[in-house]
Amino acid sequence: MNTTAAEIQKYIYRLWPIMRSITGDGVRESLGIISEIVDMEIVEVPTGTRVLDWVVPKEWVIRDAYIIRPDGKKILDIHDNNLHIVNYSIPFKGKISKTELENHLHSLPEMPEAIPYITSYYVPRWGFCISHNERLTLPDGEYEVYIDAEHIDGSLTYGEAVLPGKTDKEILLSTYVCHPSLGNNELSGPVVAAFLHRELASIEDRRYTYRFLFCPETIGSIAFLSKRGDYLRKKLHAGYVVTCVGDNGPFTYKRSRRGDTTADRAAEYVLKVSKDTKYVIKDFFPVPGSDERQYCSPGFNLPVGSLMRTMYGQYNEYHTSLDNLQYISISSMLDSIRMYLDILICIEYNGKYLNIFPEGEPQLIRRKIFPKLSDELKSFLWVLNYSDGNNDLLEISNKSGISLDSLYNTALKCLRAGILHEIED
Amino acid sequence: MNTTAAEIQKYIYRLWPIMRSITGDGVRESLGIISEIVDMEIVEVPTGTRVLDWVVPKEWVIRDAYIIRPDGKKILDIHDNNLHIVNYSIPFKGKISKTELENHLHSLPEMPEAIPYITSYYVPRWGFCISHNERLTLPDGEYEVYIDAEHIDGSLTYGEAVLPGKTDKEILLSTYVCHPSLGNNELSGPVVAAFLHRELASIEDRRYTYRFLFCPETIGSIAFLSKRGDYLRKKLHAGYVVTCVGDNGPFTYKRSRRGDTTADRAAEYVLKVSKDTKYVIKDFFPVPGSDERQYCSPGFNLPVGSLMRTMYGQYNEYHTSLDNLQYISISSMLDSIRMYLDILICIEYNGKYLNIFPEGEPQLIRRKIFPKLSDELKSFLWVLNYSDGNNDLLEISNKSGISLDSLYNTALKCLRAGILHEIED
Amino acid sequence: MNTTAAEIQKYIYRLWPIMRSITGDGVRESLGIISEIVDMEIVEVPTGTRVLDWVVPKEWVIRDAYIIRPDGKKILDIHDNNLHIVNYSIPFKGKISKTELENHLHSLPEMPEAIPYITSYYVPRWGFCISHNERLTLPDGEYEVYIDAEHIDGSLTYGEAVLPGKTDKEILLSTYVCHPSLGNNELSGPVVAAFLHRELASIEDRRYTYRFLFCPETIGSIAFLSKRGDYLRKKLHAGYVVTCVGDNGPFTYKRSRRGDTTADRAAEYVLKVSKDTKYVIKDFFPVPGSDERQYCSPGFNLPVGSLMRTMYGQYNEYHTSLDNLQYISISSMLDSIRMYLDILICIEYNGKYLNIFPEGEPQLIRRKIFPKLSDELKSFLWVLNYSDGNNDLLEISNKSGISLDSLYNTALKCLRAGILHEIED
Repeated sequence: MNTTAAEIQKYIYRLWPIMRSITGDGVRESLGIISEIVDMEIVEVPTGTRVLDWVVPKEWVIRDAYIIRPDGKKILDIHDNNLHIVNYSIPFKGKISKTELENHLHSLPEMPEAIPYITSYYVPRWGFCISHNERLTLPDGEYEVYIDAEHIDGSLTYGEAVLPGKTDKEILLSTYVCHPSLGNNELSGPVVAAFLHRELASIEDRRYTYRFLFCPETIGSIAFLSKRGDYLRKKLHAGYVVTCVGDNGPFTYKRSRRGDTTADRAAEYVLKVSKDTKYVIKDFFPVPGSDERQYCSPGFNLPVGSLMRTMYGQYNEYHTSLDNLQYISISSMLDSIRMYLDILICIEYNGKYLNIFPEGEPQLIRRKIFPKLSDELKSFLWVLNYSDGNNDLLEISNKSGISLDSLYNTALKCLRAGILHEIED
Repeated sequence: MNTTAAEIQKYIYRLWPIMRSITGDGVRESLGIISEIVDMEIVEVPTGTRVLDWVVPKEWVIRDAYIIRPDGKKILDIHDNNLHIVNYSIPFKGKISKTELENHLHSLPEMPEAIPYITSYYVPRWGFCISHNERLTLPDGEYEVYIDAEHIDGSLTYGEAVLPGKTDKEILLSTYVCHPSLGNNELSGPVVAAFLHRELASIEDRRYTYRFLFCPETIGSIAFLSKRGDYLRKKLHAGYVVTCVGDNGPFTYKRSRRGDTTADRAAEYVLKVSKDTKYVIKDFFPVPGSDERQYCSPGFNLPVGSLMRTMYGQYNEYHTSLDNLQYISISSMLDSIRMYLDILICIEYNGKYLNIFPEGEPQLIRRKIFPKLSDELKSFLWVLNYSDGNNDLLEISNKSGISLDSLYNTALKCLRAGILHEIED
Repeated sequence: MNTTAAEIQKYIYRLWPIMRSITGDGVRESLGIISEIVDMEIVEVPTGTRVLDWVVPKEWVIRDAYIIRPDGKKILDIHDNNLHIVNYSIPFKGKISKTELENHLHSLPEMPEAIPYITSYYVPRWGFCISHNERLTLPDGEYEVYIDAEHIDGSLTYGEAVLPGKTDKEILLSTYVCHPSLGNNELSGPVVAAFLHRELASIEDRRYTYRFLFCPETIGSIAFLSKRGDYLRKKLHAGYVVTCVGDNGPFTYKRSRRGDTTADRAAEYVLKVSKDTKYVIKDFFPVPGSDERQYCSPGFNLPVGSLMRTMYGQYNEYHTSLDNLQYISISSMLDSIRMYLDILICIEYNGKYLNIFPEGEPQLIRRKIFPKLSDELKSFLWVLNYSDGNNDLLEISNKSGISLDSLYNTALKCLRAGILHEIED
């Protein structure tokens, strides 16, 4: 791997402070920075466009937001922490009582030091997020609320990058860029995906075509599917939603809805043979979830899983100001890139072959490929016996206990000797 | 539930003393009493009618039966206990030695106080059933045997009641009325079935059509299938044989031969979520068994299971005079009605739906059905994701762990919002 | 069984000293002796014949082989032990240094008293096998090597015996005759197979046709499949490779590649109900293995498993001079014959039937076949209910827990009563 900790750190720091939402300049600015690593096409989908069952909403412009206490103290300034404003808030300027203000405040009594992350994309309202500790200190009196925001006709923005391979069968890596200043969920996702793209780009002779998507969650993947869904139904071989890959927890793999696709089998194989003994496999569930909810909706049912570390909703810091730069670790992100890369290489290796001489064993010795080592002979005979059109190398590895690497090397020798030929899955 | 313990008790007492057999006035009298609760059609199938591989036998008329001991004492009088005569005995009048009599006596040495229940429907013979204790006191000498019986051309009688629903898909409840003065097996069966019928009749908007059968065991269900078998093959959605539902034992569910029909899945779901933690599930077996032996014969293979408490053959009192009114309990029968009712409601709720917007998630918020509670959102997203034509609500409940009730309520909301439509199973 | 320990012993002793290889007079002489027990056809396949992906090699003629030490002592004489020569060695006569000789010697440092068994069928070379203890005593100096051998155009020889049955569906018993002076692997195999053939021949009214094959391993079964493979694809009902059946270890059953064929189900049933509680079941693996590697190649995928005792490669003495007459036992071979015979009888009994009166239960009493014993009634009702075209008797035995014998006897009664008819599998 070429990716360094210093590079990751640099991009994390640059992307961190940007005020992102599901639309608007925050997304554009973030995609601009990621474009330094990934050569991507920026797609703009105009406000009002019908995308599947949804409609692209207006673009949110947020210029300033804060509150002046009765004692004149300025609080909840989004320039201090962009979580302070309920994301997508409508504009509001005016003086209100503390009682009225309370209806617009969000805090977490059970985590008094944390500012919650709240959004209201499709219900027009305004609100502020505050730590419960601070909330308790608010005096009675009149508060001046200032939200300089606008919802304008504009567009939804996403970035798409395609790395071509020998076949037009595709592998999708999907991640999202709509959460402001949250670490594990979400900043780890686009950063890991970006460097994974660069690693893949440096591999020669890729078998598969790789499609990377950097989009706002839900509405972004829906807009993408609205355009690419039919094509992916035909061409998608495997895919993953890259999210929550920055903390120190063990890996969690959430299966695709189909449960036994190449995406699932490769991820589970690599986790099984990796040195990390602790990991978790979960069957698909439609909620909670990220964009696999759309990819795995019944009308698409694509082979898309999600490799994470500690999953959304499974850690207390989730969707609060405590999911911050301290919560995530650069070395975990490097490990996540490595694990994703291993899974993708596993898919590259996992061919399916047909034994051209299936009646009896082919005579290896006549072809001068009879192996010297008994382990290698084992690999030959397993590959030849089970390459009957029903088993790919991952399946043969499961049956035999022989590593995918060994089986792959054997398959290459058999291909060269003309006793196997490769078949499309 | 409207059924009261007092009502059950009244009918049990009235039905108890009747001398039932597989044909004859005992069956007719019993059906007449049950007709006070269930508005049923009485069907008479004439002696000699071919029914499937069987022929309806002659009708048994039994007027009197007893024995006079050498010392003049009258014993084994059927007016004391109608188990004393081997059911379907041929007539006999005459004086015989004790040695000869012994060939016609049946007792249970291992249960010396019990009178066994013995039948001989298809082999012409006569006999008496006696407690082993009494048998041991019989003196040597000449015995006078008196059996005033007749086998006449008549008919086999059963009762059939149909409660129509919105669809002509049917649910069958089958129970039998041929055992004289036996409690758990059988009187609990027709009494529970009768009150279950009354409970169902009071439910409005039943989805399914309910067919209740009160028949003599084996030959009765064979006669019924001879007439209704072809129709049930097309229309039967689920069915149960109601028997052994009066004792205090835990519930036993015997699966249909197919093993995974709606009948099976509903019964197992309700048992699983009921407060009773102890219950037993058994795969289908053709013997021992009741009328499910006919419904689940390979030529019909209907979706018919059987919910019981302690199963035939699993309790010592079975088929003896000890399976009496003390052995059964009114409150157990009330519980059995409740459990059957819960299962039938479960089947009523267990619809199968198709998501009309299967590509991506439908936008709930635009339709103003976005739920406030996260548990309710979970229910929405599971129902929508898995309503793909392959999963009914019970299957979605199994996958998600969400209760059938919640899923049903969600499905109704989705139906009203026009994002699901119901499909026939 | 008619086979006696004395007979087995006699044939073991006669076959033991013969210098066998994959071709040549050793095979012919061995088949000649076995022909005294089994009336077989001897097939000769000429050198150079293409058989599947292989070519029949030249015939090996070995007349003499030994070495004269520098001190004049004659060692490694094949007349002392025919394992001393690397099987299929090319001729060589000449004087060489100890250093040069070392390149041609094979010994086992970890088993210093054992002479290894080494072959080189398809790579032309010469060599000697020696115990490591003896190797350590070899003095420096000049050694005289003498190998009087020849590779001539000739043929490959195998023996085939067919015992006809009522149907042309076949059961194959395959064993090999190419290892010189090795006990468990291989001499136990042909001897057990030969007496098994004689036992079967004495059974009247065999349902199946039995085909026995005595061939050199690998190339022999490949030559046989080249001729019979197409036929066996159509006609083979079950088959076994008989090998490693002479030691005292527990039985090992290696499943066919398909894993659930009649061969597998019968072997596993008989092992399960046999008095021996210890046995091992293994899924198919293509290596290590014997001729099932060819039968279960993907182009044939025949229903052939292998019942063994201690499997090749699982005991230290395997392929050394210690796999000798002391390692095997006559009583184990008798037990192996018995176990194979039980499995074949199990297959003979394992019919598949169709209930002619599948709607409801057929009325047994009218046909005077209603059983007196409740266990027998159980057998009747299981056979009748599950004889629906999907279940053979072994499957019904698994479902019911009733022994195959009982089910078979019941099926015969039902056949005679005209309520079942037999169907081809």
